[in-house]
Amino acid sequence: MILVIFTGSRYADWRLAEKGRLLHGFRTAGINSYIQDENFINQLLNKNTDLLYNAEKVKKIFFFGAGASSKERQEKIIQVFSTFFKNAKVKASHDLDASAISTFGDDKGIVGIIGSGSNAAYFTGKKIVTNNYGLGYILADEGSTNWIAQQVLRDYLTDAMPQGFREKLDEKYSLDRKYILEKLYNNPNPNIFLTSFADFFYEHRYEPYLSNIIKKGLNLYITTYLLPLLDQYPDSNISLTGSVAHNYQEWLTEFAKEYHLNIKTITKEPIQNLIKYYINKN
Amino acid sequence: MILVIFTGSRYADWRLAEKGRLLHGFRTAGINSYIQDENFINQLLNKNTDLLYNAEKVKKIFFFGAGASSKERQEKIIQVFSTFFKNAKVKASHDLDASAISTFGDDKGIVGIIGSGSNAAYFTGKKIVTNNYGLGYILADEGSTNWIAQQVLRDYLTDAMPQGFREKLDEKYSLDRKYILEKLYNNPNPNIFLTSFADFFYEHRYEPYLSNIIKKGLNLYITTYLLPLLDQYPDSNISLTGSVAHNYQEWLTEFAKEYHLNIKTITKEPIQNLIKYYINKN
Repeated sequence: MILVIFTGSRYADWRLAEKGRLLHGFRTAGINSYIQDENFINQLLNKNTDLLYNAEKVKKIFFFGAGASSKERQEKIIQVFSTFFKNAKVKASHDLDASAISTFGDDKGIVGIIGSGSNAAYFTGKKIVTNNYGLGYILADEGSTNWIAQQVLRDYLTDAMPQGFREKLDEKYSLDRKYILEKLYNNPNPNIFLTSFADFFYEHRYEPYLSNIIKKGLNLYITTYLLPLLDQYPDSNISLTGSVAHNYQEWLTEFAKEYHLNIKTITKEPIQNLIKYYINKN
Repeated sequence: MILVIFTGSRYADWRLAEKGRLLHGFRTAGINSYIQDENFINQLLNKNTDLLYNAEKVKKIFFFGAGASSKERQEKIIQVFSTFFKNAKVKASHDLDASAISTFGDDKGIVGIIGSGSNAAYFTGKKIVTNNYGLGYILADEGSTNWIAQQVLRDYLTDAMPQGFREKLDEKYSLDRKYILEKLYNNPNPNIFLTSFADFFYEHRYEPYLSNIIKKGLNLYITTYLLPLLDQYPDSNISLTGSVAHNYQEWLTEFAKEYHLNIKTITKEPIQNLIKYYINKN
């Protein structure tokens, strides 16, 4: 039996498969090994009956996560999973690897993520070429939900948004200066707070005030992440994953024409192609 | 005996005075009631012999701090100080109040801080008019050391700075991607890390790469903070405090001419005027 996991900051998608057949698929809270400790991950594993029941049958685990970028944090995942799945060989990889494998399989190209955060890199068909991105919401994350939320919250706090949009925010959330600053500066996971606005942004994407911010973010993503990679690897195909890439693909496709980008695919849920890839290989 | 304290993120300045005469002055680590807990402040008080020796003699305390913006956090300061200084009446205020009193005394004007963070407001001669600024390094802080450090660290991590400047940074600090991201995202006080580069920035201010960033920051500070306040309160005098305002006053003065700003004073250490003000009033 194999287990494939793809996790962003908000959700983790799980797939169990055996003898070329999908057995179970489900979604849990996200696992970010940068932020969450062993206890959190352990509890999450022990709460799920599909996992508990199959724990000893799983032979191979392929884990892909936004936080799993360094050897150290991959080791943390491998250790917790190996203790729970006693007979399994665990491989932990970065979410960029998942984006690459889910679209390009064994082909080469530029992979990008615009979700809670932003990232991009070149994939050789075998591995991701180490990149300079993935610097998080304090230094970068252009175009991501984190970034959009930062613009919107600043405008909210400085009275720089149209009254109508302000009322919609107020209707949905109990925001005020004290609450926002506490969530950002006195809370271990400010990014969970920032990314919690994702559904609201999608719902109100056609409000001109918000459309402008999202489009500005997508443009900034293209100029900051994709164009420099295209300079290095001209004429590459581009594949994108992440909620922002998926939700605003209409606008992304327009910009792609203007910038002459070859966007091959925009994938909503990499987990589907990932499990197919590993079912075929195992 | 009176005690006046002015504290930023890095340092706190203390002055003890009695019968119109300054008795002691010294500097300790900064106190940020937003970040630091009662224990930290208590230890700091108990480590200082000038304070220990005079604890019971102090009758009035005037505390000004960057973190002391809300009633709640002012209460925290008042409680810790009242326990240590048993006979004192404690008043805790925001650092903007200190900036205002230290320059304007009982006159009106626009007060600004460009130090570790950025802030500005209108002072009526009696009190600060509540403002929308002071949103911290995740949402704002334009022009401050936090902001400059964010630009420099991003450029460092994305190979977007001149090699010569990069070498100077490497010579002084042991920076790498892992270390920087840990300090920013896995550490309770990312702003202490950001502001720790202040002296290095000042030392290398004439490197064209850094001059450009600092000047861009000062411009952004003027357009984001001062111009909107001048729209509301035209022809006001402006007084500035904070290490960035002080260190780069040469450039600030140039910009002030271009934007036709009336900068009345740029004060290095508000504590000197503060203690004079309170000695005269007590």
